[in-house]
Amino acid sequence: MAGLDWLLGRRLASDEAELEQIGPRSGVAILGLDALASAAYGPEAALTLLLPLGVAGVAHVLPLLGLIVALLTLVYVSYRQTITAYPGGGGSYMVARENLGPRAGLLAAAALVLDYILNVAVGISAGVGALVSMVPSLLPHTLALCLAILALLTVVNLRGVRESGLAFLLPTYAFVATLLGVLGIGIVKSLLSSGHPVPAVPIPPAPVSVAAVSAWLLVRAFASGCTAMTGVEAVSNGVPIFKPPTVVNAQRTLTAIIAILVVLLLGIGYLARTYGIVATEPGAPGYQSVLSLVTAAVVGRGPFYYATLWSVVTVLALSANTSFADFPRLCRILAEDRYLPDSFATRGRRLVYSQGIIVLAILSGGILIAFGGVTDRLIPLFAVGAFLAFTLSQTGMVVHWRRLGGRHARHALPLNLAGAIGTSATTIIVVVSKFAEGAWLTVAVIPALFYGFVKIQRHYERIGAQVRSDVPLCIATAQPPIVVVAAQSWNKLTERGIRFALQLSGEVHAVQIKSESAKMQDLTAQWERLVAEPARAAGLRAPQLIVLTSHYRQLFQPFLDYVLDLRDRYPNRDLVVVIPDLVVDHWYQRFLHNNRGAILRGLLRLRGGPRVAVVNTPFYLSGDAVTRR
Amino acid sequence: MAGLDWLLGRRLASDEAELEQIGPRSGVAILGLDALASAAYGPEAALTLLLPLGVAGVAHVLPLLGLIVALLTLVYVSYRQTITAYPGGGGSYMVARENLGPRAGLLAAAALVLDYILNVAVGISAGVGALVSMVPSLLPHTLALCLAILALLTVVNLRGVRESGLAFLLPTYAFVATLLGVLGIGIVKSLLSSGHPVPAVPIPPAPVSVAAVSAWLLVRAFASGCTAMTGVEAVSNGVPIFKPPTVVNAQRTLTAIIAILVVLLLGIGYLARTYGIVATEPGAPGYQSVLSLVTAAVVGRGPFYYATLWSVVTVLALSANTSFADFPRLCRILAEDRYLPDSFATRGRRLVYSQGIIVLAILSGGILIAFGGVTDRLIPLFAVGAFLAFTLSQTGMVVHWRRLGGRHARHALPLNLAGAIGTSATTIIVVVSKFAEGAWLTVAVIPALFYGFVKIQRHYERIGAQVRSDVPLCIATAQPPIVVVAAQSWNKLTERGIRFALQLSGEVHAVQIKSESAKMQDLTAQWERLVAEPARAAGLRAPQLIVLTSHYRQLFQPFLDYVLDLRDRYPNRDLVVVIPDLVVDHWYQRFLHNNRGAILRGLLRLRGGPRVAVVNTPFYLSGDAVTRR
Repeated sequence: MAGLDWLLGRRLASDEAELEQIGPRSGVAILGLDALASAAYGPEAALTLLLPLGVAGVAHVLPLLGLIVALLTLVYVSYRQTITAYPGGGGSYMVARENLGPRAGLLAAAALVLDYILNVAVGISAGVGALVSMVPSLLPHTLALCLAILALLTVVNLRGVRESGLAFLLPTYAFVATLLGVLGIGIVKSLLSSGHPVPAVPIPPAPVSVAAVSAWLLVRAFASGCTAMTGVEAVSNGVPIFKPPTVVNAQRTLTAIIAILVVLLLGIGYLARTYGIVATEPGAPGYQSVLSLVTAAVVGRGPFYYATLWSVVTVLALSANTSFADFPRLCRILAEDRYLPDSFATRGRRLVYSQGIIVLAILSGGILIAFGGVTDRLIPLFAVGAFLAFTLSQTGMVVHWRRLGGRHARHALPLNLAGAIGTSATTIIVVVSKFAEGAWLTVAVIPALFYGFVKIQRHYERIGAQVRSDVPLCIATAQPPIVVVAAQSWNKLTERGIRFALQLSGEVHAVQIKSESAKMQDLTAQWERLVAEPARAAGLRAPQLIVLTSHYRQLFQPFLDYVLDLRDRYPNRDLVVVIPDLVVDHWYQRFLHNNRGAILRGLLRLRGGPRVAVVNTPFYLSGDAVTRR
Repeated sequence: MAGLDWLLGRRLASDEAELEQIGPRSGVAILGLDALASAAYGPEAALTLLLPLGVAGVAHVLPLLGLIVALLTLVYVSYRQTITAYPGGGGSYMVARENLGPRAGLLAAAALVLDYILNVAVGISAGVGALVSMVPSLLPHTLALCLAILALLTVVNLRGVRESGLAFLLPTYAFVATLLGVLGIGIVKSLLSSGHPVPAVPIPPAPVSVAAVSAWLLVRAFASGCTAMTGVEAVSNGVPIFKPPTVVNAQRTLTAIIAILVVLLLGIGYLARTYGIVATEPGAPGYQSVLSLVTAAVVGRGPFYYATLWSVVTVLALSANTSFADFPRLCRILAEDRYLPDSFATRGRRLVYSQGIIVLAILSGGILIAFGGVTDRLIPLFAVGAFLAFTLSQTGMVVHWRRLGGRHARHALPLNLAGAIGTSATTIIVVVSKFAEGAWLTVAVIPALFYGFVKIQRHYERIGAQVRSDVPLCIATAQPPIVVVAAQSWNKLTERGIRFALQLSGEVHAVQIKSESAKMQDLTAQWERLVAEPARAAGLRAPQLIVLTSHYRQLFQPFLDYVLDLRDRYPNRDLVVVIPDLVVDHWYQRFLHNNRGAILRGLLRLRGGPRVAVVNTPFYLSGDAVTRR
């Protein structure tokens, strides 16, 4: 327990919850990393697809990014409204469930669950990939680095919301400050040189144009650039972590995140065009990320360049944190609706939903291991999940305003309608243009998750119906139970078992299974002296000894047969099977003792039926008696 | 169960044991394979060490093999006497324990246990190695082939002694017949050509002599050749598997094995010298085993050659069977002396000691996997174990005859004394000459096993002393126990638990832990109606409801604290904790239910102390009710 206290911090009482609430400053670090990190790969993804156009491609960057920013703004406005309408959190799931019905909600939940899991794997892997390209000697340790960052994120999040906010504050603001610095300097330089700045270091020449611009190419570039929008729903899912005024704080956080993101996207697009920067072929020799090219062109390869690149690497690696903040909360809401086990809805020692955090770590760790820490191919997948959730949430808000009616609704509805159309169109574009690259997998996994949730809920409903009761206690049989004691030889364990049995009932059967073991003592001769006489002397009915011979050296079957036969002969009485149980001092000593007690208990549990209860009477070796009194 | 019947055969009753006993013919197949297979590698091992002498080395083969055969004869005579003296089996362990004391016995046991385990790995790996050198395309499947043979041996042995005898009869006699055929033809050819036969196929030229003969070289060659003697103790360890007259049958088997082995060793040595065959460098291109060279020289590379080589491969691979016959019996005797868990002394469904067979398969499988199926380096190791056991057994027999005295002893003692001196000298030679090659490992592992056995026995003795009792039942407290029921909400599980509790005692406490879960029903308001009133109406004391609030969302600790406090307040009464238990239809559904019941039971077992017993009352979903009535 001391170890856990050290690792995770002391246990927090339920009424200390408000200590764990945060303001917008921490909010950006906890819920914004995913969205902000998108600035590092969204423009890059779009530019990479424009590579075949050569230097001519640069001209299309700003319009494309402008379109993405417009869509982003629509989504922002919508989620701002969602925060007001659903201050309990839950984001897309809640909005879709309330307005479009439980099935639509569940579809959004399935999309988000997949999105969150992939985001952890992809985020960490992207950060480590960037780190490894800066320090190539780390390449062989890619997977180990990924798992180490995953472990760090898991522990920090298990320590609670406030601590993870503090832990990620510095990297987040270093990222924002350095990038804004680069953009500011670049824009000033550009303006001073009338739009034709001289790069601080030479820019790699653009490749020769091998294709003419086509609508399909632009559509694909747009779909790739849309990965810049993932993570925008995070704040609306996590509203309850903010301190009062909760809604205002959440909205401020969302506004700050989107404002920074828009500035970063447009700034990068503007500088890429002004400096004539095209992407370099990923994986090819001489590859550099677009951010690295832009930064180097603006400030040269000095300390500021390295500080900027390091902060990008750090934020990429930590962008998984957004999933850690939201996934457990989504699971909790799903658990409350019975789509997941109860335990997801229980807050752990630090008032976070620990089980969700641990499950997320295990699932994304599995993906990282399966892909050896290189998850580039998964990037197209998780945009699908995000846009599906966006679409359902926007559509849900449209229905919400229509139901609500009134003045405010009349203004709000058109915005959400535009958002719904924009995001649904984008979802279709992303699925179609990325289908062969892996989006088909999403199309398979999301329905599977959906089906799983439905099955789980049905299971709980079925059990609930059988277990539920509002009927008072019904005491039909007043007869005490028949007690069967497993008694292989006479020793202190057996004595303890029989003594206990006599407390429960006047009818005690001690069953000995005789097999071939040479050392086996026949209890028959001594039963009168050892058991029957003392019992009668105490005024109790003497326990019977039943000796069963096992010709086939089976111990469980004859015992089980005896118990089941007894059960069937006395259909109105309960049976208690007493199994004496030796408790050893050390776990490894268990290998030296047969686990017959545990096997017998398991068999009786499976086959005994409702009237057979099993008791273990423990016997402790005296070495430990002191600590147990 | 049908699957097990198919795989292992129907369960045999204990009184069918005599059906499973065997005669000398099967005896050679079951207990002789290890010794006979030695003929394939013993001479080869000696010849390989003589390689540096070039063609001059051939001259030393026959004297070396003559010395080994002399030692073998001594050991044979000694084990023949052991069989008469100890018809209960156990071989070296028994002889050493009875005559030199338990510690010496245990040392022999440790040596044999290691020897048996290594023999399985080395035998299978040697057979597969020979097979792979004949069919090189199988090379990538070396480990898979090894494990497949291991699985085959395991299953055949689990099917019982008689079946394994039948299964291995054909390969054994094919091996003996083909090899004796080759030797017979070779000797006849040699005699007809006055000792200068013309090889049927050209013999590879002997390498140039690079060293002069030295005593150290000859000693090392002798030590290597001694691996030909491993497996000789097998019959004396397994005497009880023979049908009456048991001792006579065992002795006949031993005689047959040794006679065949001696003929094979001397015949191979004679032909190697006559044909001038030297070993080829193992692992070098053009490598051929000595047996292959001899066979080809005598009969050419025709069908007979291939039949002979195939039978050698088969017998090598199956030589591990001797360990499967003896290891479980040795473990059984060790278990009866409390050096191993009881379960090693229980015969399984086919009247063999199944646990020993399975443990042997797991350990040797582990070695095969660790070494990737190539265990050449382990060969020197297992000769040490064998010779250590020989020495202890011979020395034990010397003491045996001295104690016994009389006419027979006077004749027998000198033979065993010579054997003791010969084998102890050989043990020292093997350890010293093979120390760097791996014998040091044996010197580390044997004492570790020895220490392990001693620790296990001490553990059982300590527990036995605490558990043992010949005192009659002592009924001090006549008071019924206090029953504590875990009752988180009112449902059929809880109702069942409380109804059961009321059968046991008039004093029932139902404990509800209130945590933050929103859905939690407060039982206080309904307790009177649901429980207290019906109980009183049935003439029972009403169960108390205790609601405990958990500020830290812990469920177990408050419950445990309550139980332990109750236990301390009533030092003379037993406590029964009733945990209602939902039994689901399918194992995978367990993931959907918390395993709180199991955790609570585990905690109470560890910390409850001797007066706290735990009962699980099962509740079955009605889907399964039909099958359980």
